[in-house]
Amino acid sequence: MAIQNPNIAVIGATGAVGKVFLDLVEERNFPFNSIRLCASERSEGKQITLKGKPITVELVTEKLLSEVDMVFVSASTKVSKEICPKAASMGCIVIDDSSAFRLEPSVPLVVPEVNKIDLKNHEGIIAIPNCSTTPLVMVLNALRTIAPISRVTVDTYQSVSGTGTAAVTELKEQTANIVNNKSPEVSVYPHQIGFNLLPHIEDFLSNGYTKEEMKMSNETRKILHDDEINISATCVRVPVFTSHSESAHIEFDGPIDIETARKVLGSAEGIKVLDNPGKNIYPMPLVSTGQDEVFVGRLREDISKQNSIALWMVSDNLRKGAALNAIQIAEELIKMD
Amino acid sequence: MAIQNPNIAVIGATGAVGKVFLDLVEERNFPFNSIRLCASERSEGKQITLKGKPITVELVTEKLLSEVDMVFVSASTKVSKEICPKAASMGCIVIDDSSAFRLEPSVPLVVPEVNKIDLKNHEGIIAIPNCSTTPLVMVLNALRTIAPISRVTVDTYQSVSGTGTAAVTELKEQTANIVNNKSPEVSVYPHQIGFNLLPHIEDFLSNGYTKEEMKMSNETRKILHDDEINISATCVRVPVFTSHSESAHIEFDGPIDIETARKVLGSAEGIKVLDNPGKNIYPMPLVSTGQDEVFVGRLREDISKQNSIALWMVSDNLRKGAALNAIQIAEELIKMD
Repeated sequence: MAIQNPNIAVIGATGAVGKVFLDLVEERNFPFNSIRLCASERSEGKQITLKGKPITVELVTEKLLSEVDMVFVSASTKVSKEICPKAASMGCIVIDDSSAFRLEPSVPLVVPEVNKIDLKNHEGIIAIPNCSTTPLVMVLNALRTIAPISRVTVDTYQSVSGTGTAAVTELKEQTANIVNNKSPEVSVYPHQIGFNLLPHIEDFLSNGYTKEEMKMSNETRKILHDDEINISATCVRVPVFTSHSESAHIEFDGPIDIETARKVLGSAEGIKVLDNPGKNIYPMPLVSTGQDEVFVGRLREDISKQNSIALWMVSDNLRKGAALNAIQIAEELIKMD
Repeated sequence: MAIQNPNIAVIGATGAVGKVFLDLVEERNFPFNSIRLCASERSEGKQITLKGKPITVELVTEKLLSEVDMVFVSASTKVSKEICPKAASMGCIVIDDSSAFRLEPSVPLVVPEVNKIDLKNHEGIIAIPNCSTTPLVMVLNALRTIAPISRVTVDTYQSVSGTGTAAVTELKEQTANIVNNKSPEVSVYPHQIGFNLLPHIEDFLSNGYTKEEMKMSNETRKILHDDEINISATCVRVPVFTSHSESAHIEFDGPIDIETARKVLGSAEGIKVLDNPGKNIYPMPLVSTGQDEVFVGRLREDISKQNSIALWMVSDNLRKGAALNAIQIAEELIKMD
């Protein structure tokens, strides 16, 4: 298999993540021999320009999969369930953005800055975490070098691009209608998102949490190889286009001082500390959108409990939360080959 | 002093809270003999219609204060610091919406549903809590009948009307500009609020928390008469016009089951449980705006800790968070008289 100079297929190339992925292919000069762009029938035949050359969007077929070495999938969970095992069985390396395989024991769930070592054991499919898990797990992985982490409560402020381009359009249209005193149309979400908040991301489960909230708990445990870490999340959709924000309260099994935490976060790969509140410097969606790093600020000792800290993090859900993480995994595989 | 049929002054009558206060005077048929509406020089001479009669907006003067029995203040902290002690020394009952006197031992800090008993000991000035404290303290007060509460982590999603009418205008104008591809002007907040989030409400303190965040801790302790309750808040401004939302993780010193919590919250005065996620029913700013209740939903056992629950609450910051609470205090004083 040609890992060093692969033939690539991008499934979901016209979606919100797919577009960013192609930007990153150019930006990072990701090495490939050929690239095939796939999407649903709605986009079939469209032309996308990559590195100055037009590429025609195709449907994914068995023949196409037989002609590539590496497949990036960012479509629906249903599409992933269908495509990924097929591509893997045909010898492709599949990097999947869906939740379909994340908790499968045979599938590495990887954030390269945290657990690239897990890439050694893949059997064809490699999963990337949910876009709200990735920044959290990067921050926790850095901090647990100071003391073991026992518990985290975390509340999210998630942008609509996490849902997809239709949600981005809906927020824009609803907002335009509202500021023009017209009534907003509701279609993607169960309620209006313009100037509103929805404490509802993905389906509700019998324990009262949503799937999205449980992902933050289960995926974090898997990535950190730590089943003792207790995480309670509330995930909220906010009227922001891009970047997910998270407010976390982190409890440690041992002393932690804020300057050590700052130093550890500041030197962690992929994290940038933005924390000078006196000068109004802190992470915001406006700052992180289009950037690769997870931005961390509002760092402080948690006044409600010993050995605890509170912090605020923001990262681009389409980049580190999805496309960037996927391409970084591919780059690691090339390095490891 | 004529408590039963008072001569009233409303200081800050043209502000975001003042307007809602006057709506509530009509809506609740609040009894008064006369009402004077005061604001800054910018609004002096404006006419406001109340119960079908035009009233001219005046500047507040010593003479005016000497002619009234009850003063509602919702202006700046600076104005409160100047007016409240003066009015109280002249025999008025002052109900103040600022943070100026909230932690003064001689000033009751009151949410009638929680601690109206504290009204008995006022010395002229009565303070109402910060708009993010009020819903939290109502929920905690209901829940602590089940078991003592030891710790709360809470993250807020606060609307711009908490800042005032200029911020409402700014959000509207920034948003209109952005959807029309013009650049947004930034003036009220240090950064753009349209389609953005600011983890910054009020000034930063030396412990890394903001004043707003410390209010949620200090005011809750005072209102509940409980210095053992530990609260850590992160307060975030979101691009929503009205209603503050809060995600809380609450730890108890003893067993708590979710059905008892639901029952206790459901029967608490001023609280309405909206919690049928399977039917997409949960509190949202869109639902609570213009309503009196604190809406609570997403009730569940916290998976990260024994004897803990997670929940989500939303309430209209201009009503229960400010004007409604103030008028309810006046109604209680009339009842007690």
